[in-house]
Formats: sequence, C-alpha cells, structure tokens
Amino acid sequence: MGDRYASFAHSGPGRALVRRFGLPEPPRLHRYTPGDPLLSGPALISTATGGRVTSMISQVLSAAGVERVAPAAPVPAQANGGRPDRPRLHAALIFDATGVTDVESLRGLHDFFRTHLSSLYPNGRVLVLGLPPAAADGIGAAAAQEALTGFTRSLAKELGRGSTAHLVQVTPGAEENLAGTLRFLLSSRSAYLSGQVLHLQPAQVTTPADWHRPLAGKVALVTGAAGGIGAATAEVLARDGAELVCADQPGHGDSLAAVANRVGGTALQLDLADPAAAQRINEHLAGQYGQVDIVVHNAGITRDRQLATLSGTDWQAVLELDLAAVVRITEGLLDDGLVPEQGRIVMVSSLAGLAGKAGQTHYAAAKAGLIGLARAWAPALQPREVTANAVVPGFIDTPLTAQLPKVPREFGRRMNSLSQAGRPGDVAEAIAWLASPGSAGVTGQVVRVCGQSIIGA
Amino acid sequence: MGDRYASFAHSGPGRALVRRFGLPEPPRLHRYTPGDPLLSGPALISTATGGRVTSMISQVLSAAGVERVAPAAPVPAQANGGRPDRPRLHAALIFDATGVTDVESLRGLHDFFRTHLSSLYPNGRVLVLGLPPAAADGIGAAAAQEALTGFTRSLAKELGRGSTAHLVQVTPGAEENLAGTLRFLLSSRSAYLSGQVLHLQPAQVTTPADWHRPLAGKVALVTGAAGGIGAATAEVLARDGAELVCADQPGHGDSLAAVANRVGGTALQLDLADPAAAQRINEHLAGQYGQVDIVVHNAGITRDRQLATLSGTDWQAVLELDLAAVVRITEGLLDDGLVPEQGRIVMVSSLAGLAGKAGQTHYAAAKAGLIGLARAWAPALQPREVTANAVVPGFIDTPLTAQLPKVPREFGRRMNSLSQAGRPGDVAEAIAWLASPGSAGVTGQVVRVCGQSIIGA
Repeated sequence: MGDRYASFAHSGPGRALVRRFGLPEPPRLHRYTPGDPLLSGPALISTATGGRVTSMISQVLSAAGVERVAPAAPVPAQANGGRPDRPRLHAALIFDATGVTDVESLRGLHDFFRTHLSSLYPNGRVLVLGLPPAAADGIGAAAAQEALTGFTRSLAKELGRGSTAHLVQVTPGAEENLAGTLRFLLSSRSAYLSGQVLHLQPAQVTTPADWHRPLAGKVALVTGAAGGIGAATAEVLARDGAELVCADQPGHGDSLAAVANRVGGTALQLDLADPAAAQRINEHLAGQYGQVDIVVHNAGITRDRQLATLSGTDWQAVLELDLAAVVRITEGLLDDGLVPEQGRIVMVSSLAGLAGKAGQTHYAAAKAGLIGLARAWAPALQPREVTANAVVPGFIDTPLTAQLPKVPREFGRRMNSLSQAGRPGDVAEAIAWLASPGSAGVTGQVVRVCGQSIIGA
Repeated sequence: MGDRYASFAHSGPGRALVRRFGLPEPPRLHRYTPGDPLLSGPALISTATGGRVTSMISQVLSAAGVERVAPAAPVPAQANGGRPDRPRLHAALIFDATGVTDVESLRGLHDFFRTHLSSLYPNGRVLVLGLPPAAADGIGAAAAQEALTGFTRSLAKELGRGSTAHLVQVTPGAEENLAGTLRFLLSSRSAYLSGQVLHLQPAQVTTPADWHRPLAGKVALVTGAAGGIGAATAEVLARDGAELVCADQPGHGDSLAAVANRVGGTALQLDLADPAAAQRINEHLAGQYGQVDIVVHNAGITRDRQLATLSGTDWQAVLELDLAAVVRITEGLLDDGLVPEQGRIVMVSSLAGLAGKAGQTHYAAAKAGLIGLARAWAPALQPREVTANAVVPGFIDTPLTAQLPKVPREFGRRMNSLSQAGRPGDVAEAIAWLASPGSAGVTGQVVRVCGQSIIGA
C-alpha cells in the first residue's frame, strides 16, 4: 500500500538506478515527531518597505527558539583573509510583503529570493506574507498583492528537495493570529502542503500553554475514524492532547474499537446517514463529555459511475452520507449548544469537489457542498467564535487509492511539486492545525494537502 | 503549428489507426461561422421546484428561434404502432436549479440528466443555472448550490464528443442579464470552453439590435494585435461589428499593419511599457475616435527562467509590460474620460497566473496581477457601468507553443476534457462575448478558455 517507488528510489541501489535512467527523484520529506524544534536552523527575514508583520514574525520565531537573521551586506573577500565568504544556510526564507503597494515594489521579492534561494536547506520553508487584495489600498496595490499568489505558487514549483512555499494574506488587525499558522507552515507538520494561499482574519486568539500539546483539554469527534485519514486524524489529535470520540459506520466495529483503544478514546458505531444519528451523537457527547470542541467530518463513500448509468440509490447514498449527514449532525450539535466558543469544525473535501472528476458527479457534488458549508458557516458562526474549514487531500496512499490500477496510481502520485503521494497523517496534521486554539483567525478556508497537485479548476 | 495529431486523427486512415491502437480521439469541435443558428436542434429544459429563471431561458431561446421542449412522459409503445418510441435528440440540456434549497432537492439533477444525457447531440451543450452560494437562503441551500459546481465540472468531464457543460450562478435581480451569456454558452462561439462557473450580477443591460453584429458602433483597442490571440481578437471583434485600433510593440510593424488592414482598423506601433505610451494611446483615440468602448489587454512577454538565476532586467521587463503597463494605460484612459458607460475592459491572463509555473515567477506574478485588477476594477467601475474581466487561455496553438518540445506540447494539448489544443480564435470569442452589450452583468470574473484543462490551483 505504501509508496513503493519512493521507498525504492530512496534506497542505495534504487537511487543509483533512478539517477541512471532519469526517473523522477521524489525528495525524502521530513515529517513531524513530537519534540522536534520548530526549525532545524536559522530563518532569514526580509521586509518590503511598509511591511507591518515583521515584528510579529520575529516574536513568534523568538518564542519558538528559532534564530532569526536579517540579510547581511556581502562581506568583502579581504575581510575574510582573502577567501570568499562561505554563505550561511537557512531553514526558512520569510518575506514580509504586506507593504507592497504597487507593481514596482514587487521587485524586492526578486532581489531577496534570487540572492538567498541557494541558501535554503532541503525540506526548507518559504513564506511570503501579504494582504488580502480586497484589503489593499487602491487598484495598483490590489494587483500587486494578487501578483504574490502567482509568484509564490511558481516559486513553490521551483524549490525541489522537499522544500515548500506558501502565501499568508494577513487582514489588517489579524496580526495577533499569526503564531499558530506560522508555526504550522514552518514546521514539519506541513511537510506535504505547498503552494497554498491562506487568509488570516482578526479573531480572539488563545495561545496554547504547550505548543506540543495544543489540544490539551479539548474533546474531538472524528467520523470515519476506523481507518485511513480518519484513524490518522484521531491519532494526531490525541497526540496533540485531545480526548477522542471515534465514530464510524456499522461493519467497521473491530477496526474502530482498535483505533479508539489506541488513542484512549471512546468508539461510537452508528449509521451516520441515519437521521437518528445526530441524536445518538448528541447523547453520547452530552453524557460523557458535556461538549465537543472539535468536529471532524471525514466519513465518506465513493460509488464511482458515469451519470448516464448511475442509479438513484448510489446517488442518494453518496449525497446522504457525504453531505446531508454533515449538515444534520453539525446543526444538531450547534442547536443543542454542544459546541462551545473556540469550537472548530473541519470537513474533509476532495480534489474532485474543486475540479470535478468523471464518474464522480455525486461525490464531487457532495465534496463541493462541504466547501460551501465551510464558507457559509464561517460568517454565521463567527459571533460564537467557532471556525469552519475544509481540507482537500491530494493523492494520499490509503486502502482506497491502493485499489487503483498501477499506471493511474503512479501518475497520480507524481503529479505534484513533491513528486510523491501523501500519507493520511499529512492530512491529519492540517486538521490538527485548523483545530488548534491558534487557528481562531482561519475560517471559511479551503486548505489543500496535496503537495501542490497540478489538478485544479 | 496546427494540431497535426488532431488533423491526422480526423482523416480517414488516421481515424482507423487511432482506433486500432486505442490512441486518444479528440472530437471535432464545431466552431462559429457568422449566420449559424444558435443551436442546431431543440433544447430540453427542466426546472427544480422553485426555479426562477426558466421563463427567462424560454424567452431567450424563443427570440433566437430555438425549439424548446419539456421532458415528456414516456410514450407507451402501443401508441407508436407497437414499435418502441424513438428517443428525441437534443442540442442542449438545460436545468434550472435556482430553486434547489437543500441536499435532497439536488436529486432532480440526477433524474433529469441520467434520463436525457444519451439524447445529447455531439457538440451539445449542458447548462445548469443556480444561485451564488452566498445569495442562497440558509446553510443547507448554500451547500446545495456549491454542490452544483462539483456536479457540473464532473459532468463536463464525462460528456465527450465535443459537448460542454457550465454552471451559471444568477444573483437574484440579474435575470435580465441572462440573454448574452446563455447565447454565448449555447453557441459554437464557446466551443473550447467547458466546466466553467460564471456569475451574473444585476446590471443595466442593452440588447444588441443584431446578435450577429453585437459590437456595431463600438471602438475597440487590442494590444499585442500583431499575431496570435491578439490578431484573432481583432478579427473577431471586427467580425462582430467593432472599429479596431490595433496596438503592438516596435518590431512587429509589418504584421501589425497587415492585421489592421485586414480588419479595416488603424495601427498603433509603440512600446507599451514606455510610461509615455498611455499619452500616445489617448491622443490616437481622442483624435480619431473620441472614445474607446472596449479595451483588450493582450500584449505580454515571457522570459522563462528559474528565479535563482533570473536577472533583474528580465523580471522588470515582464512585470512592466505584462502588468504595470496595463494599470498605467487603463488608468490613463479612465482618467481622460475616454471609456464611456457600458465600457469593457478585458485582460488576457494565463493558467500560470492561477496555478503558478516553474520558470515563471515573474510571468505568473504579472498574470495573477491581471486577475487582481479585474477583481478590483469590477466594483470600482460598477458606478460607471464599466466591466472588467480576465480570460485565461489554456493550451492554445500559437507560434509561442509551437516552439515547445514535442512531448510537453502533445501532453499539454491532451490534458483537458476536449483532448485537444484550442485556437487563438477560441480565446477571441470569449473576449468578444465579455465585450458585448449583453455582458453587462459579467464583471470581476475569471473565464478559462481551456477545454477544461486539468491544471489549476
């Protein structure tokens, strides 16, 4: 089931063969282990004139024990005993472009990255900070801020060696919300994300007491928890300190119980598509926990078939479980007051939901519907300080994708900037970040965990 | 330069070989010729309960002389002399889903399309009409309306045979604006568009006196008009009745003059990136025409190179011509009052602007910036009844793409739902539609002319 090509290419003889025949060389991604430092080396920071988040970035890095350096003037060779200066290497390159107000001032991006790209470690991080174009002052500023999206996405495609790049658009007033998102994007928790554009909105933010256990004291419900992305999510949320309620469909009893035991949580086996499910979930949560801080809607089924021969039964089954149940269960929890302030709702959507896919009219409709839910709930739940977001997994090695024929599977794995499939745990890390207290300013967003897959719309 | 594979596959012996070896069979697209009827057969229309645009659709089709039919009850075999009923064929299937208010009511889409998909002509058209999710009444309705995006994009990927599918989201109050967009999407003018989601906003709309010459009496400026998409745009706008001003860089004098002569327009040879260009354009337009109704920013250069070795000169040249000049020239025209009410600004962006591309940090920044301009100008110019939009060409056969190595070129051509490259004229048709009086309700949009390319972000 694992990415055997990547394992092979990383082995001694495999690496030699791969190089000999010019096959793609997927870089080895460094993934998070509890206790890892935020960065394995210094971060280089630069600011376009007028940048307003640089001091906040410095505070975040300082609190995380990261060495910060500013671009130095080139050292004259003489000062170094005649030898050329050995360039300093960096684990992250960060550019504060919030002060970019016209096309001309984009030039600073070129100058900074052109000079320093070669100093980036493997598995390095590039972050560009900007403004939402709609918040920019004037037409030229809006164009320049939107230009940052094309720049960052292109750069993400050039980096190689497991390095990633993102743009974070910080609405004025949302600077206090930077810590959680910066830490996620800089850390190895975000190993399989690249080329994302994220927005931060102003919101009441709480700093976790322990950044390695940010979910301590939180209760989390994960649907579809018996395997794949759901099981990985239960494990990562538990690792980050949450108490888990693991829910799944009938027929997955054994694996569900195993996951629940592994994470020290409770198991809730029920047909989520049954209109009575919401009531049962509420009773379980109200009885044993009193509330639920984090709701992860991950359960879903596919029944691929072209629309011309798709039965009404299959249409209904997919729409019911993948979308209608999510509406019903969430509304049940909200109506019964079980989701407290700082609650988090995360839905697992799909690339098919963004771009469509042949054979998946019903599945893509449901998964697009989840994105619609995140966008509609975000403003509706803002007064309660509850966020709603969607994650979009790319090609992830799961039992589902293992069933694909070999050629489309290998093709799917390579069609992204990291030239490899993701793991269920990669999606789980993004969910854990959205679920954390530091993500109060992230709502109504669609976050792709896809290694910057080329698929889109 | 043309798509030789497609020409070959359409030839007699080519077709046989293609079938024999299971090679992709790009469908032959029917493209618009003046005088073509809107549709070559009847349109089948269905409505979800509460749909509010069906009568407007009927009016549009009726005015265009299209036969409209409603889904019939199956004819009993006896009534047909014992023979099974021969199914009626349709040139378009149209579903009014504006009344869809919850997940359950999406079911009507399945029932309608499942039953009637097989009745669609080759080069047929599927249109789904919905609401912008933000305008839907409640969370469930927003989710169901967003679900239409995933449904339509998936269906567009299933159709084959040169047929296309789109979703038009009609803001309440914008029903009067349907005619121009429906006519474009149904007609063979939109042959190379598929899987698009378009929004219609309320706006003062004018019906062209002659739908075959909707731009009669309009003055249009096209930059980069000496060849490729620019020359095709000049030709299509002239065909649709506009007077043309063809502008291009120094060094393209001969081809620019040839295009201008062909379309009966004037030629304006100047360095668009020169800050003095705006003044020269204004003088030319004010002196000879008094105004400019349509401004098409198509001029652009690429200087592909990875950022780590990209010179400041190349960065600046691309950003200046592809983005800064567009801001400067448009602001010059607006400030001098040369763009009247019902003015149209169209910018030619790029898939790289949406998704990024290695080697194109500067080009993608500029092309994303154009999208930022469209989004920022749309609300700013609404009081003047001027629209601003961006078109995004997919893989188009031009002198530029002809220089690509064979493998990436063939790959690029096939990676879309129509399995073939587009032509410059396909992009020109989309520009002409955005430029027309009937498109008053289309503004701030990004329209892809890409055969539903899989590339996106």
